[in-house]
Amino acid sequence: MSTNDNQLRIGMVGYAFMGAAHSQAWRTVNRVYDLPARARMTLICGRDPGKVAEAADRLGWAEHTTDWRELVARPDIDVVDICTPGDSHAEIALAALAAGKHVLCEKPLANTVAEAREMAAAAAAARAGGARSACGFNYRRVPAVALMRQLVAEGRLGEIRHVRATYLQDWIVDPQFPLVWRLRKEVSGSGALGDIGAHIIDLTQYVTGQRITGVSAVTETFVKERPLPAESSGLAAQADGGSAATGPVTVDDAAIFLARLDGGALATYEASRFATGRKNALRVEINGSLGSVAFDLERLNELEFYDATRPAAEQGFSRILVTESEHPYLSAWWPPGHIIGYEHSFTHQMRDFIEAVATGGDPTPSFAEALQVQLVLEAVVRSAEEGSSWTVIEPALATTAA
Amino acid sequence: MSTNDNQLRIGMVGYAFMGAAHSQAWRTVNRVYDLPARARMTLICGRDPGKVAEAADRLGWAEHTTDWRELVARPDIDVVDICTPGDSHAEIALAALAAGKHVLCEKPLANTVAEAREMAAAAAAARAGGARSACGFNYRRVPAVALMRQLVAEGRLGEIRHVRATYLQDWIVDPQFPLVWRLRKEVSGSGALGDIGAHIIDLTQYVTGQRITGVSAVTETFVKERPLPAESSGLAAQADGGSAATGPVTVDDAAIFLARLDGGALATYEASRFATGRKNALRVEINGSLGSVAFDLERLNELEFYDATRPAAEQGFSRILVTESEHPYLSAWWPPGHIIGYEHSFTHQMRDFIEAVATGGDPTPSFAEALQVQLVLEAVVRSAEEGSSWTVIEPALATTAA
Amino acid sequence: MSTNDNQLRIGMVGYAFMGAAHSQAWRTVNRVYDLPARARMTLICGRDPGKVAEAADRLGWAEHTTDWRELVARPDIDVVDICTPGDSHAEIALAALAAGKHVLCEKPLANTVAEAREMAAAAAAARAGGARSACGFNYRRVPAVALMRQLVAEGRLGEIRHVRATYLQDWIVDPQFPLVWRLRKEVSGSGALGDIGAHIIDLTQYVTGQRITGVSAVTETFVKERPLPAESSGLAAQADGGSAATGPVTVDDAAIFLARLDGGALATYEASRFATGRKNALRVEINGSLGSVAFDLERLNELEFYDATRPAAEQGFSRILVTESEHPYLSAWWPPGHIIGYEHSFTHQMRDFIEAVATGGDPTPSFAEALQVQLVLEAVVRSAEEGSSWTVIEPALATTAA
Amino acid sequence: MSTNDNQLRIGMVGYAFMGAAHSQAWRTVNRVYDLPARARMTLICGRDPGKVAEAADRLGWAEHTTDWRELVARPDIDVVDICTPGDSHAEIALAALAAGKHVLCEKPLANTVAEAREMAAAAAAARAGGARSACGFNYRRVPAVALMRQLVAEGRLGEIRHVRATYLQDWIVDPQFPLVWRLRKEVSGSGALGDIGAHIIDLTQYVTGQRITGVSAVTETFVKERPLPAESSGLAAQADGGSAATGPVTVDDAAIFLARLDGGALATYEASRFATGRKNALRVEINGSLGSVAFDLERLNELEFYDATRPAAEQGFSRILVTESEHPYLSAWWPPGHIIGYEHSFTHQMRDFIEAVATGGDPTPSFAEALQVQLVLEAVVRSAEEGSSWTVIEPALATTAA
Repeated sequence: MSTNDNQLRIGMVGYAFMGAAHSQAWRTVNRVYDLPARARMTLICGRDPGKVAEAADRLGWAEHTTDWRELVARPDIDVVDICTPGDSHAEIALAALAAGKHVLCEKPLANTVAEAREMAAAAAAARAGGARSACGFNYRRVPAVALMRQLVAEGRLGEIRHVRATYLQDWIVDPQFPLVWRLRKEVSGSGALGDIGAHIIDLTQYVTGQRITGVSAVTETFVKERPLPAESSGLAAQADGGSAATGPVTVDDAAIFLARLDGGALATYEASRFATGRKNALRVEINGSLGSVAFDLERLNELEFYDATRPAAEQGFSRILVTESEHPYLSAWWPPGHIIGYEHSFTHQMRDFIEAVATGGDPTPSFAEALQVQLVLEAVVRSAEEGSSWTVIEPALATTAA
Repeated sequence: MSTNDNQLRIGMVGYAFMGAAHSQAWRTVNRVYDLPARARMTLICGRDPGKVAEAADRLGWAEHTTDWRELVARPDIDVVDICTPGDSHAEIALAALAAGKHVLCEKPLANTVAEAREMAAAAAAARAGGARSACGFNYRRVPAVALMRQLVAEGRLGEIRHVRATYLQDWIVDPQFPLVWRLRKEVSGSGALGDIGAHIIDLTQYVTGQRITGVSAVTETFVKERPLPAESSGLAAQADGGSAATGPVTVDDAAIFLARLDGGALATYEASRFATGRKNALRVEINGSLGSVAFDLERLNELEFYDATRPAAEQGFSRILVTESEHPYLSAWWPPGHIIGYEHSFTHQMRDFIEAVATGGDPTPSFAEALQVQLVLEAVVRSAEEGSSWTVIEPALATTAA
Repeated sequence: MSTNDNQLRIGMVGYAFMGAAHSQAWRTVNRVYDLPARARMTLICGRDPGKVAEAADRLGWAEHTTDWRELVARPDIDVVDICTPGDSHAEIALAALAAGKHVLCEKPLANTVAEAREMAAAAAAARAGGARSACGFNYRRVPAVALMRQLVAEGRLGEIRHVRATYLQDWIVDPQFPLVWRLRKEVSGSGALGDIGAHIIDLTQYVTGQRITGVSAVTETFVKERPLPAESSGLAAQADGGSAATGPVTVDDAAIFLARLDGGALATYEASRFATGRKNALRVEINGSLGSVAFDLERLNELEFYDATRPAAEQGFSRILVTESEHPYLSAWWPPGHIIGYEHSFTHQMRDFIEAVATGGDPTPSFAEALQVQLVLEAVVRSAEEGSSWTVIEPALATTAA
Repeated sequence: MSTNDNQLRIGMVGYAFMGAAHSQAWRTVNRVYDLPARARMTLICGRDPGKVAEAADRLGWAEHTTDWRELVARPDIDVVDICTPGDSHAEIALAALAAGKHVLCEKPLANTVAEAREMAAAAAAARAGGARSACGFNYRRVPAVALMRQLVAEGRLGEIRHVRATYLQDWIVDPQFPLVWRLRKEVSGSGALGDIGAHIIDLTQYVTGQRITGVSAVTETFVKERPLPAESSGLAAQADGGSAATGPVTVDDAAIFLARLDGGALATYEASRFATGRKNALRVEINGSLGSVAFDLERLNELEFYDATRPAAEQGFSRILVTESEHPYLSAWWPPGHIIGYEHSFTHQMRDFIEAVATGGDPTPSFAEALQVQLVLEAVVRSAEEGSSWTVIEPALATTAA
């Protein structure tokens, strides 16, 4: 495998919501950015032969297969992009790394800490052979999030005192919404916690540059039994109207937890699929001794920044429209004030991934960083099971926090 | 004591921030509302003879004294209004109730559960003799908060799933801000927790009509030593520049906690004086199975209401400008869209208090309800001391939750 | 007349909406601000004997009368506060000035330019004898508006390019809303234009320090006939249900106009009572070469300020919570972030009026400044009558623009 | 030319800002939507041989040429997509229509009414031969705008009373910003008026279903002389630092105008490139007798809707997150609350264009509708030249207004 011809041939596993989002990004990235390599949409893999053929045609992949092992084995594939549910991440990623492929794996990295640990070890080992790997915490690539990190890193917030992060959705409030795979622990590993809680854990650790050192948690499953699904895709689904069959929801509907960061900040987290009216409300606010930032994914082109070093009478949260050429990722896009959307976070992710891989760098977040998120997820589950008692999280690696 | 002459003679103890706010309300209430009795600003009490005389003149009280016992003993005083720091609430209130006075006591009711319990018992006993009592959780009287409660009570939110409440301020972020009485446990009982956390505990229990049944908590004191104050009033103060003396901060700067409500909802709470840029940001959001509400005290004339029973394509958070004659408390004020301020919550409180007392009703919240808040405050402290372990809160009285 | 005893005895004419707002302000002003004189609520005047007696009792005036001439003639009255509809402003103000009284006259100053001109001349003449006068454009005293003016005056906006001002209400959208006095030209002079358009004309001239030099206008009366009212007060009223009688609406429901300011800016104005959902939406935005400000009266505690001299990546509209002790008028009120309301603009107006009068200064805006507003109102009417043709406005006085 | 093979071969003229935006849309549209034909990015045309070759490679066009006449003449081209400055629209479009091609032409349709009239006539004539044409007012395809139109069409706003529309940018506030083609009348036809004013004219006529019948206008050029540009692309450019040469700005920097709509509404319009801090602020508010809507392009995923038929105490502007499968265009995109960006309006435009052309329908807006916009632009210019006098606009065609 090489990028001598300045090409990166992508093999993507999965064609549902994440597959569509990644396809849009792979298709777009070289049209917008000047990069040292071009992504080729070579091969897509899915279990259903008809559907994967249809997906290949619609999404623009040259070839398709139903066997991910074939994909991993093909010598012309440079990158394996894993967009499947969490229960297959470890197996595919380990095989891909063993085959010397670069790997981009969707989040959460795995369904268990044990798997994640094995993956992180394999990634570190494969790196020596030239394979690179990263986990798809795409929200790091929202320009406003990158700007937040930049402001924190420049010391503009001073000493961090508070983090409050919520990721709120409402797509399963209706008790008749069916039992899709995301509500079954054996496939998804966890519910709101791993699906969306993982995002705010990673995002806040990333933006602050700090590590969560302990948590106290409560989780809840409000609707414990749901109709079996007829069919589903993305986050939409319909119950099988012709059947009265139901099954147990085996994951959390919501998780709330307190945390401390290693720099001394207090933090609150909430992930829920029962927050009526909140569609995709990932909100983060960080208060420091010199300033604060606030972000809302439903208004992802904006960042609120409070600079407490300004003249007292002029202080206020500034609504920065993060759409300007001075902002991360944006000089390649549109004129001032022309907003971008959710999908652009993936295009930016692919940009950074391609650039790192093509130049021998290390794409981020590494599997080790993703393992650190997994450790937090596991601690949350344990604390919730043990009367919310304080549960300590150790660093996965000495170097993780950086 | 009677209100046969349709007058209620008020004796107020305290003349600082709360004293000024209460004075503005007593002065205004009968000018705006038609009520069965008129408040007379008869007597003000404070420890400093010069200052209390000046306060009487400025705030419009007929007489002044430095001895609260004299105030409580005066036969012409109908109502004792307690605006002192928490360490003197119990003694004054118990004496006033013993003297057969109606009592309005600022929040939190007391500095300890033991005191609060004694006060609630005394209030219940005094009621037989005609004395009425209430605790000054004035935010219940913000029209948007009253509207929230109304919407919940009417079932418009359905089953409550989530409560998230924060009360954020930033007035002590500067480590050179002096050690005022609110930072000394022996006077204030606690820090952000009792001062502002008490408000969101009461407000969310009030609005949902539910009781907090358990908590898991973390508290923190970020700045542990501060300069001694030269002098202070309200929330503003200056360090004694001529002195290098400092003292220990003995209260929490911030408290965060998870909770469950007796109706099954999960809740998160945060009270902090270290949230840079947030001046008086009491924010509450409640998500139910049929709708949601969101409120921000910095925009207290607005309520956001999401009605999930509306046509799907039209659902959204409606910004209700709670300034119209159809809204609680507002028909007596200004034309449509003319906003009111913080101080009006006290005027509304006095309206409800006068109306209840003059008609033999029971003003709210009762001391028993305020005791329930105190039990939560104590549980938060205990949980924080015991590794955030889940701490159960019992009902103070069988009838409290209603 | 003197203020040797540090008292200003007020005689107020009118007891409806404006009378209630002024009463609240006179009652409060000395309780909040340290001022060189104290306002005494001496005498209130209204046409209906029963109502004025009731108003005196409720609003807190010592005496009452039905004869404004008696009020003007009384030697113990220092200030005549005119809160009547516009058709009586001139007569009362001229008599009061002739009697050597200080005069505070509600806006618009008069119903015609001729009247306003006579009043301005009389005010200038009476000044020599010690009488002071001002027109009640109370929104100048909203702290955020004062802060806007300050920012402009300090050059923070650079050269002013654009002004856009709207004052939108919706209280007469319903065609069954009755024909109250504000809809009858012989009493009110004009409709939305004079009632609320006058405010944005004055406010924008005040904040920019510039004069409107010409306008092009369109006005409209959407509902031309309305039921006669049973009775009305404030902005609320009910049609006389027992009668089928209607009458013609003789004023504008809405007025829109373009303008130029003498500093070269373009401006757009809109005043309407038919903007469904906008209750009291006075909004002003000003764009300059170095920055911009935006204000909304429904959120009167906030000012948005864009500083184009900030680092490019951090520029944004800052939401300044204009509630801090560093802001105009606010050090006397509540702690950080505790908002004020509509009525406070009157309290601040009385503060400035008392301070100016008691120290021999000139309260603002002067009758001459108010005349300048009147000239704009008249030019708007003329332009609308003459096919929107450009209509020039001359300065009332050489010194008005300052 | 046929679409028998279910393909539409696109030939695009222009490769700057609009060319990039259109390319992204042509590339994406069939990946997201199921359509009766597939767009093929066959040929791109530009004047500079090197740049057009580079653009073809980067943007993904199969072939390139420097001669638009060759493009128009090629038998395999089905659609001519015109993305050049306005001075070449007419010539290219007329030739393409004559050659029987479908034509998509960027807005404004032309630089003069005469050209636009000729184009509309040619489009009508060519239609008989099967050629279809439309003008690229892409903002009609923003989902929130489509939803606005739907609400108006369903009568949810009742009788329209007010329209206020602004399109504010700030990219030429700096007097050193160079004299790019958009500031030269011979190329662009007009300045802010035609570039962005055209959008709000079309959008408001589209959403209300009403026609502007007359205007009164003022235009201004604040900076009359600018440095000559070194090179430019999109809206970004740099002055030629090595040269002191300047040239005259021959277009308007800002245009403001009043209007009436044929349904009786009053309207205000403002287009400016001097609104500091407003980057791409196309804002529209429409007030009707039963409701109102408000839209801001910088938050294009949101629509505010006020429904005055709701219970009085619950009325408020609802922030509808227009990202749901129930909303126009969105069922093909992402899960709930996942926002889209500016570029999606073009993808939606291409979707509608392909669907109409492939099924023999008529894509919108027609050249006749675009001519109607041109008539308004011309009337604005004339009114501004003639002392803002009222200038009537006739319907271009009897059937245009529908």
